[in-house]
Amino acid sequence: MMKFYFSPGSVSLAAHIALVEADAKFEAIRIDFATEQQRSERYLSINPKGRVPALVMDAGVLTETPAILMYIATVYSRAKLVPFDDPFAVAKVNAFLSYLASTVHVAHAHGGRGPRWASKQSSFDDMKAKVPQTMRECFLFIEEELVVGPWVMGEQYSICDAYLLTISRWLEGDGVERSDFVKVDRHAALMREREPVRRAWEAHFDAPMP
Amino acid sequence: MMKFYFSPGSVSLAAHIALVEADAKFEAIRIDFATEQQRSERYLSINPKGRVPALVMDAGVLTETPAILMYIATVYSRAKLVPFDDPFAVAKVNAFLSYLASTVHVAHAHGGRGPRWASKQSSFDDMKAKVPQTMRECFLFIEEELVVGPWVMGEQYSICDAYLLTISRWLEGDGVERSDFVKVDRHAALMREREPVRRAWEAHFDAPMP
Repeated sequence: MMKFYFSPGSVSLAAHIALVEADAKFEAIRIDFATEQQRSERYLSINPKGRVPALVMDAGVLTETPAILMYIATVYSRAKLVPFDDPFAVAKVNAFLSYLASTVHVAHAHGGRGPRWASKQSSFDDMKAKVPQTMRECFLFIEEELVVGPWVMGEQYSICDAYLLTISRWLEGDGVERSDFVKVDRHAALMREREPVRRAWEAHFDAPMP
Repeated sequence: MMKFYFSPGSVSLAAHIALVEADAKFEAIRIDFATEQQRSERYLSINPKGRVPALVMDAGVLTETPAILMYIATVYSRAKLVPFDDPFAVAKVNAFLSYLASTVHVAHAHGGRGPRWASKQSSFDDMKAKVPQTMRECFLFIEEELVVGPWVMGEQYSICDAYLLTISRWLEGDGVERSDFVKVDRHAALMREREPVRRAWEAHFDAPMP
């Protein structure tokens, strides 16, 4: 059986939702960031990047949220998590995943992961202070340009929606006023109506979705 | 005909190489970063992100290097730029693209694009000072874990190779000693033997590949 390594509240929620949506059989294994389990020798032998998520299969280990999401959608194609019949629509899915991974998640990470990119406390503080602005700009762009509605890709639910919910969860902690983002808020409300989303959420937080 | 917006020396070289490898018909349009053409009203109406590359087709505008690369490989499947017959291999391609986009390119960008994530000159200086270390760590990981050889995916050339060459070009400017990276150096030498790579390079730099 596939093993899925995750940490509650991290970006791994996106792939977790996709696995449950796809009705995949998998064992979910929690990695505790508080005790730095992601840096343990045992976990680094699975994922030398020391990050989550990681999906372990007979074929090998897969990392990187966009790659894991697209793999789940490909292998469990009956779940229709990507509109594979339209190459341009698939490309738009990939572009959305890539924007979240390389721009939005990166903007968020400057709040708590400053040491990845700088060395001084004053720089970490400066980076952290800018997060409300950068995350707000990202979500203005998402709200105006990227979310067609009701789902990211329009009428069809996709892996983009799992990823958007996961990152939009971070907005309040990042100091961004959510009420400015009507489409993103409505999107979260729609996600809450999906049973697989609630199940993945509860596996992360040991509590029902608020 | 497709329009491909690029800027010499930027990450857009990767998609440019893939377009030439695929023998795609496209018009290449140069965006001058020195005069901030990427922030002109005209270009922002094409790509509101104000970045390159952007690929403009009848179906719409596509941005984000991983998405553009995968789209080219999908539509021009005869060029065999992705091993589509193996879903796990496709996932490994996506994971490599995602790692370059969200970790390696981001590490590099802290050298010159500090204002994206901070506000003070002292922070920009601190970020810039760390780039040789972060880029070195990324390329140690690429060299040890990710490049099977001779190509990134092993025997089969893929879009990963175009992306790796594009980013490994930046190492010297980032203060990283290239000679420590035997596989990456041999990879660049192999790329130089490919006529489509040389043609894309010359379209960028108006000079032959060194």
